[in-house]
Amino acid sequence: QNNNAPSSYDIHDIKITGYLQTQFQKAQTPGISSFSGGDFGENSDNRFMIRRGRLKVDRVDTYSSIVFQLDATQNGVQLMDAFLQLNHPDYKAYRFTAGVFNRPFGYAIAYSSGYRDFPERPRVYQTLMPRERDIGGMITINPVKQLHFLTADFAVVNGAGLFARDYDSRKDMVGNLHFQFDSLAAKKINVAFGGSIYKGTVRNNTDTYYKASAAGFLKNTAEENKGANLKRDYFGANVQLEYTHSLGKSGLKAEYVAGVQPGIAASSGVKGPEASTSFSMQPQTDLYLRNFSGYYIWFTQQILKSRFSALLAYDVYDPNTDVSEGQIGVADNTTAGDIRFATLGYGFTYLFNTRVKLTVYNEQVKNGPTALEKYEDDIRDNVFTMRLQYRW
Amino acid sequence: QNNNAPSSYDIHDIKITGYLQTQFQKAQTPGISSFSGGDFGENSDNRFMIRRGRLKVDRVDTYSSIVFQLDATQNGVQLMDAFLQLNHPDYKAYRFTAGVFNRPFGYAIAYSSGYRDFPERPRVYQTLMPRERDIGGMITINPVKQLHFLTADFAVVNGAGLFARDYDSRKDMVGNLHFQFDSLAAKKINVAFGGSIYKGTVRNNTDTYYKASAAGFLKNTAEENKGANLKRDYFGANVQLEYTHSLGKSGLKAEYVAGVQPGIAASSGVKGPEASTSFSMQPQTDLYLRNFSGYYIWFTQQILKSRFSALLAYDVYDPNTDVSEGQIGVADNTTAGDIRFATLGYGFTYLFNTRVKLTVYNEQVKNGPTALEKYEDDIRDNVFTMRLQYRW
Amino acid sequence: QNNNAPSSYDIHDIKITGYLQTQFQKAQTPGISSFSGGDFGENSDNRFMIRRGRLKVDRVDTYSSIVFQLDATQNGVQLMDAFLQLNHPDYKAYRFTAGVFNRPFGYAIAYSSGYRDFPERPRVYQTLMPRERDIGGMITINPVKQLHFLTADFAVVNGAGLFARDYDSRKDMVGNLHFQFDSLAAKKINVAFGGSIYKGTVRNNTDTYYKASAAGFLKNTAEENKGANLKRDYFGANVQLEYTHSLGKSGLKAEYVAGVQPGIAASSGVKGPEASTSFSMQPQTDLYLRNFSGYYIWFTQQILKSRFSALLAYDVYDPNTDVSEGQIGVADNTTAGDIRFATLGYGFTYLFNTRVKLTVYNEQVKNGPTALEKYEDDIRDNVFTMRLQYRW
Repeated sequence: QNNNAPSSYDIHDIKITGYLQTQFQKAQTPGISSFSGGDFGENSDNRFMIRRGRLKVDRVDTYSSIVFQLDATQNGVQLMDAFLQLNHPDYKAYRFTAGVFNRPFGYAIAYSSGYRDFPERPRVYQTLMPRERDIGGMITINPVKQLHFLTADFAVVNGAGLFARDYDSRKDMVGNLHFQFDSLAAKKINVAFGGSIYKGTVRNNTDTYYKASAAGFLKNTAEENKGANLKRDYFGANVQLEYTHSLGKSGLKAEYVAGVQPGIAASSGVKGPEASTSFSMQPQTDLYLRNFSGYYIWFTQQILKSRFSALLAYDVYDPNTDVSEGQIGVADNTTAGDIRFATLGYGFTYLFNTRVKLTVYNEQVKNGPTALEKYEDDIRDNVFTMRLQYRW
Repeated sequence: QNNNAPSSYDIHDIKITGYLQTQFQKAQTPGISSFSGGDFGENSDNRFMIRRGRLKVDRVDTYSSIVFQLDATQNGVQLMDAFLQLNHPDYKAYRFTAGVFNRPFGYAIAYSSGYRDFPERPRVYQTLMPRERDIGGMITINPVKQLHFLTADFAVVNGAGLFARDYDSRKDMVGNLHFQFDSLAAKKINVAFGGSIYKGTVRNNTDTYYKASAAGFLKNTAEENKGANLKRDYFGANVQLEYTHSLGKSGLKAEYVAGVQPGIAASSGVKGPEASTSFSMQPQTDLYLRNFSGYYIWFTQQILKSRFSALLAYDVYDPNTDVSEGQIGVADNTTAGDIRFATLGYGFTYLFNTRVKLTVYNEQVKNGPTALEKYEDDIRDNVFTMRLQYRW
Repeated sequence: QNNNAPSSYDIHDIKITGYLQTQFQKAQTPGISSFSGGDFGENSDNRFMIRRGRLKVDRVDTYSSIVFQLDATQNGVQLMDAFLQLNHPDYKAYRFTAGVFNRPFGYAIAYSSGYRDFPERPRVYQTLMPRERDIGGMITINPVKQLHFLTADFAVVNGAGLFARDYDSRKDMVGNLHFQFDSLAAKKINVAFGGSIYKGTVRNNTDTYYKASAAGFLKNTAEENKGANLKRDYFGANVQLEYTHSLGKSGLKAEYVAGVQPGIAASSGVKGPEASTSFSMQPQTDLYLRNFSGYYIWFTQQILKSRFSALLAYDVYDPNTDVSEGQIGVADNTTAGDIRFATLGYGFTYLFNTRVKLTVYNEQVKNGPTALEKYEDDIRDNVFTMRLQYRW
């Protein structure tokens, strides 16, 4: 289920796996910005689409593994994963990964969309780490004896994502610690938790950047700002609980992330959610440094040991924790890029068999009233999704 | 041979099949518009090209199937098919398909290009349903007992084709009935026929649309036309005959389609054939509603039970049946988008073995004289094709 | 190791092979033009990247073979090879190839990057034949009896490369002769050598072209130059030596190419190295005919029969042999497109196992002082590469 691994570490020659997700979606209004499979067309409030079409080729031998994954949808065919892994039977605790892989930050990023109960990753992660992957190298330590419950990852990456050779000369670093305690209490309970750090930078292309404060953004203009690498710092914590009982399996997963995200200002050409999205190329305009926070809580309940599971989710992304919603548009230089969104999601999954899953899911996306035109009220951007998935 | 199916419905794990078509072509003049593999380069009247490079991955089990097909050519790598199918051994008559699949309209659309005798689908289908596929869901009914000769399909699709999430909020519907009687007359004759309906719409983005009449296009301007969904209605009928006799196998396939196609006007930036091509995104200019008709007749004759077969084809697409050719350019608002084209094709195929096929084929493309500048005479747009295909 | 072949000519059903190259690179200055994996980002002097991500599917039977290869990197997914091959057991000397294949010119072009000791092909080949492939047909003759040491190839191709249907009406021809004498001197020595010719044209889109001379470029303006096909002629010679001795295996490979290359002038929008790069589409501006020459010498020495090998390379590409470096900027119409570059490369490879290879390699790229602004001195464009490759 971790994407930074082949389909299995058992030694095998070429193996092809993958999954296909096809879905129908209905939005509350045409043309909304959405984190449920991408923005809707300007005049479209419903659509059929291929959400993910994955083809994964992998191979494992005693000393090395290779993983190669493509994503093919109506939007095109793209490389998703392409990494090799080195390990040694005498030093089982260590594994080295190089190539395009999922950033080892938190839990939801590297967890496969083919196995996740919920249709999408939370808004905070889609914003901070679009498409999850980056290019670089990673060392993973899993002490197989005394501390087998601990996994530590440390990666150095471009910071520009999976579709770019880097646009600046600084690399970003990601560190992750994860603790897993399975089969507690007569094998009924699994507990896991962890923490992560991301230390990176974004290059400022102008002599000006803005820094968030309670009064809005403060402008900093100086010759040395041009080409300066401004801090991109995240930290996160996560927990996962699983409890198998007479009514079926219950699962609770939660994660919190906060830090500083360099973004830009929203404008007529830059939609609000895009303003704090991490960059895949050099942003040409002034950077805006925002203190952000976000979290999600996912609850899954199998219904009476049946093939049905109920889903309940709540997630929040506040791109700017310094300014309250009512002050957006009033406080200096605030834009639609500073608006906090909360999403309540609920629905169910039905397993036709081990390969085919139906997901019916509704999301209520809320934002508070601001002083900005068009954002005085909650945007009507709820989304209903009906998805069929085949995994092979 | 039907594209809306895996390589075989026998239960199997991942199977890779595909075909490659590589060809040399010679056009009568450089830079022609062509339905024989796409328009020629402005200064080019001959070319080598990969026409189709297909890689199909499929898998079938008792309850479900998956099909995933890529097309890789010099023009790029794209997703062609991506659908899952659900069925149940107790209800063998029913099959549900979801994802990217061929629109179940008529015969030639869903018939695989890897098996077709003729190099390309007829002009009418390339115009109405470019790349054949769309995204949505389909139910197929094939009563396995009393009416096993009948197959009925009903699909709901975006209407925007395989490379787009929909651009409007209305879905299109496709219905198909097909009757197949194999092994008649001492197993010497196969007969099949069918009929299809397409009921869809195209969104008009302006306050004006044009409607075809014998006097040309009538302009309709009204506030409510902006955003109106104008009718896209097709109906079709088809027949296929196969006769095995002492001189070799003979095959005759014919299909007729007519209806209303919303298009645009041809102009300096829009070539004639593009004017009535179905849209993959919102057309920005006024829509032109045309009553069209088209048909094809394909005749294949195996030469004395040898590896050679002779091919003969005739196809017609008249985008505007209300206006005669001589009136185009005279009748109101008529453009190069209204010109009727007829194609006479002839050639042969040679099977090196079950996998490798050579096709040598010549097409004479005719259009009548119009009153439009540059279209006073038949355009010199014949095309000769020599193709090698490998199927695996 | 020759790319114009399946993974093996032993009869086999679908087989998947491939390789992944992931690397870290450091440039001497940000934003340099580079032939070591492509130009660096404007503000970037180091990067992680996927250099090549290849997935090859092939199949071989008695009479035919098929090869299908994709390349997937951060830059996208593209078709690399797509060809079928015909042969006959009774005429083993002959093989016909059609589709996208490597131009049979010299040695380094068709030699697989998955097997090459050095990270990249030399600058001269990357300029003359970008991405190595073209689309067309090829006959290969390898007399299996008397002259089994000889291989002759003759190909007809578009001349526009692997990502284009041709842009003009003239095809290009490539001829190659290669002699291979293996296992000489008690199986200790392999010797091979060969020669090649490329006869092609490039269409001039204006009424003017320029021809190189010692005094710079002479301007030719005439009505008939518009649409004229100007000569693109190369000839080459190559030699490969392998010697297995007590200190390990030594290898020496060298190749020389010269001829006439139609290019364009370098300008603010066209970087120097792009000016003489072969075109994939019709160049819109005046052509510049340059007499060029280039060569490379590659020396590989296995270190004491260990898994380490030392690499040493020197290559030169002089796009304009008529004008000396000091005259560039002075002689008529000379531009940065005429500058000669020499590259000294050195490093080592380490084989973890048969599949995983580490390459550490440094390149010193030198150009002579010219009279052009910004090119008065050697550009600081050295590149260091650390690469991990997995081949499967």
